[in-house]
Amino acid sequence: MAEEAAVRAQAETVRRLKQDKADPDEIAKEVAKLLNMKAQLGADEGKQKFVLKTPKGTRDFGPKEMAIRERAFKAIISCFKRHGAEVIDTPVFELKETLTGKYGEDSKLIYDLKDQGGELLSLRYDLTVPFARYLAMNKINNIKRYHIAKVYRRDNPAMTRGRYREFYQCDFDIAGQFDPMIPDAECLKIVHEILTDLQLGDFVIKVNDRRILDGMFAVCGVPDSKFRTICSSVDKLDKVPWEEVRSEMVGEKGLSPEAADRIGEYVQLHGGLDLIERLLQDPKLSQNKLAKEGLGDMKLLFEYLTLFGITGKISFDLSLARGLDYYTGVIFEAVLLQQENEHVEEAVSVGSVAGGGRYDGLVGMFDPKGRKVPCVGVSIGIERIFSILEQRLEASEEKIRTTETQVLVASAQKKLLEERLKLISELWDAGIKAEMLYKKNPKLLNQLQYCEDTGIPLVAIVGEQELKDGVVKLRIVATREEVNVRRESLVEEIRIRTNQC
Amino acid sequence: MAEEAAVRAQAETVRRLKQDKADPDEIAKEVAKLLNMKAQLGADEGKQKFVLKTPKGTRDFGPKEMAIRERAFKAIISCFKRHGAEVIDTPVFELKETLTGKYGEDSKLIYDLKDQGGELLSLRYDLTVPFARYLAMNKINNIKRYHIAKVYRRDNPAMTRGRYREFYQCDFDIAGQFDPMIPDAECLKIVHEILTDLQLGDFVIKVNDRRILDGMFAVCGVPDSKFRTICSSVDKLDKVPWEEVRSEMVGEKGLSPEAADRIGEYVQLHGGLDLIERLLQDPKLSQNKLAKEGLGDMKLLFEYLTLFGITGKISFDLSLARGLDYYTGVIFEAVLLQQENEHVEEAVSVGSVAGGGRYDGLVGMFDPKGRKVPCVGVSIGIERIFSILEQRLEASEEKIRTTETQVLVASAQKKLLEERLKLISELWDAGIKAEMLYKKNPKLLNQLQYCEDTGIPLVAIVGEQELKDGVVKLRIVATREEVNVRRESLVEEIRIRTNQC
Repeated sequence: MAEEAAVRAQAETVRRLKQDKADPDEIAKEVAKLLNMKAQLGADEGKQKFVLKTPKGTRDFGPKEMAIRERAFKAIISCFKRHGAEVIDTPVFELKETLTGKYGEDSKLIYDLKDQGGELLSLRYDLTVPFARYLAMNKINNIKRYHIAKVYRRDNPAMTRGRYREFYQCDFDIAGQFDPMIPDAECLKIVHEILTDLQLGDFVIKVNDRRILDGMFAVCGVPDSKFRTICSSVDKLDKVPWEEVRSEMVGEKGLSPEAADRIGEYVQLHGGLDLIERLLQDPKLSQNKLAKEGLGDMKLLFEYLTLFGITGKISFDLSLARGLDYYTGVIFEAVLLQQENEHVEEAVSVGSVAGGGRYDGLVGMFDPKGRKVPCVGVSIGIERIFSILEQRLEASEEKIRTTETQVLVASAQKKLLEERLKLISELWDAGIKAEMLYKKNPKLLNQLQYCEDTGIPLVAIVGEQELKDGVVKLRIVATREEVNVRRESLVEEIRIRTNQC
Repeated sequence: MAEEAAVRAQAETVRRLKQDKADPDEIAKEVAKLLNMKAQLGADEGKQKFVLKTPKGTRDFGPKEMAIRERAFKAIISCFKRHGAEVIDTPVFELKETLTGKYGEDSKLIYDLKDQGGELLSLRYDLTVPFARYLAMNKINNIKRYHIAKVYRRDNPAMTRGRYREFYQCDFDIAGQFDPMIPDAECLKIVHEILTDLQLGDFVIKVNDRRILDGMFAVCGVPDSKFRTICSSVDKLDKVPWEEVRSEMVGEKGLSPEAADRIGEYVQLHGGLDLIERLLQDPKLSQNKLAKEGLGDMKLLFEYLTLFGITGKISFDLSLARGLDYYTGVIFEAVLLQQENEHVEEAVSVGSVAGGGRYDGLVGMFDPKGRKVPCVGVSIGIERIFSILEQRLEASEEKIRTTETQVLVASAQKKLLEERLKLISELWDAGIKAEMLYKKNPKLLNQLQYCEDTGIPLVAIVGEQELKDGVVKLRIVATREEVNVRRESLVEEIRIRTNQC
């Protein structure tokens, strides 16, 4: 405490010297003294004070957050299962070398484990690389699977916007050699189903193809060696205006202004089948083999999406680039267009909520013989969706229940603990979700209040008279109605009244 | 390759020299040469070969293992919910100092993260310490919660016996100041319900109390300073005979032979209410305040367990000690008594499958003001249960399904991809779980075979005639029966036939 007061006094000294425009050397000396005192204080605090917190960029999920999380997972899992997916799980860490060379620049964000002897390990960065490792290791040639798990990135967290260092990914992937664009179309159908089901407001799914991008770069005069770096400039177009991207291309990355301007014309294009047809006629693009392949597949994709009836939300967008290195074909990203609820507009600013694409080369990077397994998949960015659902719930009047308890076993008089224990045991054994207060002689009012607080709909009240008569008094919390139910019919009565069939 | 051949040749040389009983010095020389060559080869391999594996002590869960895992979780979660528990989740890592000083000797098994700047982190070692941290941090005075998540221990893995470095714990805890032994009894009821529900064969739940142990040590003449170390000797009694434990106490830990023999008499005792009554009359124990308190509570516990009707599986056992430091009252451990299926007896040797106890001081270790929150809880050791369920499934004829797909959308002729896509989209939108093969023109036989392989019960076949007639041919895979269903009734028909209400 004394040290803290001294630091405050020193800070005041510095403030005054500055205010008085004192000799800069003197100010510098006093500032140095202040910093030294602060550091000393910090070190002392470090020794004594235990900081009660979760690690930076992480959070606990309390019962309310879990209830919301489980709602979102339920919608997503039921969609994945509707599409016939199996489920797998992999360890939270991988051999360090499994992750090496898969993420380009982002590799610096990987969490490593301390070398405590034995293997060098890292926490998984996404679910895609462990999936590819799993396929190669088990020599699996085709599978449709989902995987919902936490991944880890030492990124700058922005938790109010749903960006964490530990966060969930919900991945659905189709691996195998199939006829073109059928699995790709299904991935887009899945994104459409999930975003519709979760009622997150209006959205658009942008679609492009790495081959179209590369072909476009080629015909615009970008040298082969600059494809990836120019691609990552294009990737910024969802955040910064074209002029800025252009000056990065020309200034920092040394692209000719003419090439940049040609790219500028293409990347402002977006549309549907009409645009694809137009580009297929484009005198330059149509001469490029890669672009032609990509456009042909894009046309096929849009035909399938038309059959699925979802083209209204799909936009073929030449500015979509996606960051990750491993994509080889179709890429896509779903973006929420606006907040459904205007009041929360400021609190949550949400962009991309799902993304994915085709990565035909990744499994081959793991296979000892380079055996390739083509893959396409989608990842749902669930943390941002949690943020929206949480905000919406807060804004609404809805009171979310965090338990499923059907009935509270209560007593109206004292000395009935044994009778409550006997009754609740019967109910548990019959599969009824039941609670009681852990008190010998709880007051009836407290027991009823507990039901109000937690949303338990029924109270089974044992009393001396009821015990004699072989009945239990069942109280419906919402209506305050009370009925005597014969003990042997109680389970059935609770089931009916809580609609459990 | 050339090096490998040279190693093989050298190995053959060594083999012949040994066979011919050559001069031992010569043999030794050639063996050294062989080892050297092998080491060289290994080092070269290390440089070039990427090892395709999961980290030591971890494993992937494929679709089949996941199906088993989800069955076990379902039984456990439904029990936790039946008892009115909320659910929480915490980050996979904690600040290193959060875990410091909680696990005694076992602290060396904690996984630390590499210092990459910022906070020092460790992977969680159990779910109990994060729970206590959560309670202290959020100033929660009472909660009944469950938490199912992976924990991490740098232990020697024994994976065939279900011991991993990454493994699940399923924890249920009741925190709060309540009347004695009511929450404690509920924890035992929960273990009983889960083990019964999972049909793991016969089991016993051993119960003891840290206060009875400490009282017993005191009256046997163990010095206070030796309580914990003698306690950990007693903890070994489930694996080694008394004579060994005794010689450890006397030899290594310097206990007097008389004190050890007195302990020896107590720790062979186990029973029920009768034993509790007898010990309450024990001239020595009944004089010890702690033991008397513990025995009084044990009596109350058995009264409640009698009301729950589960004393048949409960054994008050004075040899039960439990490893962890933080227990302060009742402790318990559930042990499977034998394999249900004799054939797998050798393959899986399973001991303890659940354990827990009362820890009234742990939250106070985190609270800045030392505010105490009494807690009691149970942890289900699910990996061992997985092992048993997996073995049992393998031994049985049961074919486990890894998807829930209700219907395969198929075609009998070529050029019907568009019609299949249209139909499957209708089914998905109606909530039907449907798949199709990702081929333009799959053979009907292959489509039917896919259903046989994956257990899909129905096939919706589109053909030219059916399209004209506005019907779909629905085939029941099990019976090979085929019926024409009007397209507008198809969803309803599939629901009825797959019993989805």
